[in-house]
Amino acid sequence: MNYTVRDSTPEDCKDIMRLIVDLAEYEKMANEVKLTHKELEADGFSSNPFFKCLVAEVPEEFKSKEGHTLVGYGFYFFTYSTFKGRAVYLEDLYVMPEFRGKGIGKALMSHIAQIGRARGCVRMQFTVLDWNKPSLDFYSSQGALNLTATEGWQLLRFEGDHLEKLAQSAN
Amino acid sequence: MNYTVRDSTPEDCKDIMRLIVDLAEYEKMANEVKLTHKELEADGFSSNPFFKCLVAEVPEEFKSKEGHTLVGYGFYFFTYSTFKGRAVYLEDLYVMPEFRGKGIGKALMSHIAQIGRARGCVRMQFTVLDWNKPSLDFYSSQGALNLTATEGWQLLRFEGDHLEKLAQSAN
Repeated sequence: MNYTVRDSTPEDCKDIMRLIVDLAEYEKMANEVKLTHKELEADGFSSNPFFKCLVAEVPEEFKSKEGHTLVGYGFYFFTYSTFKGRAVYLEDLYVMPEFRGKGIGKALMSHIAQIGRARGCVRMQFTVLDWNKPSLDFYSSQGALNLTATEGWQLLRFEGDHLEKLAQSAN
Repeated sequence: MNYTVRDSTPEDCKDIMRLIVDLAEYEKMANEVKLTHKELEADGFSSNPFFKCLVAEVPEEFKSKEGHTLVGYGFYFFTYSTFKGRAVYLEDLYVMPEFRGKGIGKALMSHIAQIGRARGCVRMQFTVLDWNKPSLDFYSSQGALNLTATEGWQLLRFEGDHLEKLAQSAN
């Protein structure tokens, strides 16, 4: 099947939001999604964007059952390691179930790795849920290291009242 | 003890690099540090910086045994959650051992939370090694959630030849 991987535009934000909700459902976290496509537009397509996003598109004749041609996305931004330097972070990688097994996910990920390398990044990092064995196996087959398993890294988060209280204690 | 928390400047990079190496030694990863203060300067103080860094400074009369007045740092950048929106990532938080227990680490972290809130961030995330119980206990006492323990998130990484191969497969 033909498909194209390209940079997203503000006009893609509704479709990207649809795919974000699909991914959240797969991750059993659909009730966590608070973002709207308007926020995506504002935060990703201003002069100082918070993120970058690639999309995978199929020709009209291969559109999905519901009529969608935008069938996958790879959402990323640049980060930094104080040990190694420039890094790229893959926040989300998602392909609609009916379009899997055609190399679209791999293509999105490879393009983000290529963009990262072109900017001098020496790492690409991301997180995966421990029960998501198909994804863990796929990334492992491509040579990814699981740093939680091998080095013991735990992901921590402040949010809500705890984040607010912490911020206010700076005054 | 008096101390000041302030934005770092290019002139601080040598000191920040010294503290990065100190932290890496504490994390038993000193041989992982490949960064130089010149790279820090180039990547953090250009028109499109990859990161931001706060430093904690004590007055000359309280300098360290080796004569240092810059005694801690908090290294951060902005990221993005496709479920919740703007986020701030705390890459490193470090205070020299002889200056601990005075609230300097908490002050650095609070200031970064405050900067994040001012930019509309709804989360502050970071990683901690599973054997680093003092840090895990400290963050937990401040209300941080351990998402690896509660939701199962694993941190994965591509680097070196695997990253290069992935990037080249995009061609």
